[in-house]
Amino acid sequence: MELDRRTLLCGLGGLAVGGGLFVLSGREGLAAEAAAPGKRFEQVGGDFGWQPKKLDPAECAKVAYEAYWYKGYACGYGVFYGIVGMMGEKFGTPYNQFPFTMFEFLKGGISDWGTICGALGGAAAAFALFYGRKERNTMVSDLFRWYEQTKLPIYNPGDMAQGVKGDIPGNVSGAVLCHISVSKWCYANKVEATSKKRSERCGRLTADVCSKAVEILNAKIDAGKDYKPMFAKQESVKQCGECHQTKGEETNWGKGILNCTPCHDGRQALTDKFKNHPQ
Amino acid sequence: MELDRRTLLCGLGGLAVGGGLFVLSGREGLAAEAAAPGKRFEQVGGDFGWQPKKLDPAECAKVAYEAYWYKGYACGYGVFYGIVGMMGEKFGTPYNQFPFTMFEFLKGGISDWGTICGALGGAAAAFALFYGRKERNTMVSDLFRWYEQTKLPIYNPGDMAQGVKGDIPGNVSGAVLCHISVSKWCYANKVEATSKKRSERCGRLTADVCSKAVEILNAKIDAGKDYKPMFAKQESVKQCGECHQTKGEETNWGKGILNCTPCHDGRQALTDKFKNHPQ
Repeated sequence: MELDRRTLLCGLGGLAVGGGLFVLSGREGLAAEAAAPGKRFEQVGGDFGWQPKKLDPAECAKVAYEAYWYKGYACGYGVFYGIVGMMGEKFGTPYNQFPFTMFEFLKGGISDWGTICGALGGAAAAFALFYGRKERNTMVSDLFRWYEQTKLPIYNPGDMAQGVKGDIPGNVSGAVLCHISVSKWCYANKVEATSKKRSERCGRLTADVCSKAVEILNAKIDAGKDYKPMFAKQESVKQCGECHQTKGEETNWGKGILNCTPCHDGRQALTDKFKNHPQ
Repeated sequence: MELDRRTLLCGLGGLAVGGGLFVLSGREGLAAEAAAPGKRFEQVGGDFGWQPKKLDPAECAKVAYEAYWYKGYACGYGVFYGIVGMMGEKFGTPYNQFPFTMFEFLKGGISDWGTICGALGGAAAAFALFYGRKERNTMVSDLFRWYEQTKLPIYNPGDMAQGVKGDIPGNVSGAVLCHISVSKWCYANKVEATSKKRSERCGRLTADVCSKAVEILNAKIDAGKDYKPMFAKQESVKQCGECHQTKGEETNWGKGILNCTPCHDGRQALTDKFKNHPQ
């Protein structure tokens, strides 16, 4: 057998994307080397080089819910595994080579800080395996705007519930941040943020976000560059953006397209809580 | 040469972590297969299976700044490449097999939404390749609290500046969210959020966050489970948490340990901006 210089395709960078070449060098010492990037910032498999695959939203939602509970890896892991892990189960490499547990970093809005909803973060990251920002940002905005205005959770695992069985109340958070989304739900339903019921709410919401993300991904695969946004820019962002997000305006300071209302409408929660509180 | 069933180690899951085995099967059809996870949620290389490596904070900061500007991949990519990419440059697989561009998803606080500062998100994700939440959360909190209270940016690329040369003013954001961090800096310095100067500020801040993250990672590698937190919980979080983050309290609604003050101290920005505005 002539194996010298014969190339093998395998692994995360290689098989599916044609980037990772393994070279058998020398008859005696059988050695395999993963392809190394040629120079700084060059990437095995190419930039955004993975190929997206269509999946079944309902099947992925169920797995995302399971993944949420698996060893407590939670929301970001749940959605990311529900998308990329499912591609791995169905299509093998490179998807099944991913170090999935890294997406536990999004738990509790990143190490319990309450920043981005981890489920949304996991979905946005998964999209970015396949699409650069010019194509991806519309997909992310559709997912995030759907989340802002939808009563969640919707998913009900029935007897497969791992936290609390039965109905869980829903609410519209108006926000993509974990802190606002969770705290408003807890306040509205008089549920402690540290309770099992709150965990169950987030587990079901993980399934919902995964399902919607797969729906968006499938639509993107079908439409390609003709993908049309499903949701318009929020009214608050349009209104505030007239001054705060318009080039040349003196007050063009506003970074971000989060719904403005939760933090800028003067509601009771925004009054000075450090003086004369509780009232 | 007897190659049948002989195993080769290579690729992202394998060489450094001992998980990814490649089997040459059959003399004729030379085929290489990456190891597949045995069952759902099992992971090639094991959970949090990558080994952390010590790096030079100053060297990584410089690369993070370069990475920020590389094809506009920005903050999250910058910090993640500045850590994991540098491990790849120095130690090869599995680090250099990572599909790095996926971390462009954090640009502008995730697709320009202004949620988590992308630089912080990139660092938290890098930590999670190596450590599960019980060990990682303290590292993340140290980085985030340092960011909340430090005047940034500090880094100055000198003649290597890719956006704007010279000094850039700094400020203390008090917040880990992109929207607050960027908008307050723009407001304080009368700089448009869409300007090159603002991009330069975020590029330098990317270098700063990468440097601090590497410092924390190096300290963690040295200390192991004896790693001691560098920053205490914020006063606001302690105070609000007495009721809003204490089990058994009726008002235990508050998810997250973000500094409370930017959104709950009644400052002018928090009054009702949708009525009689501008004043």
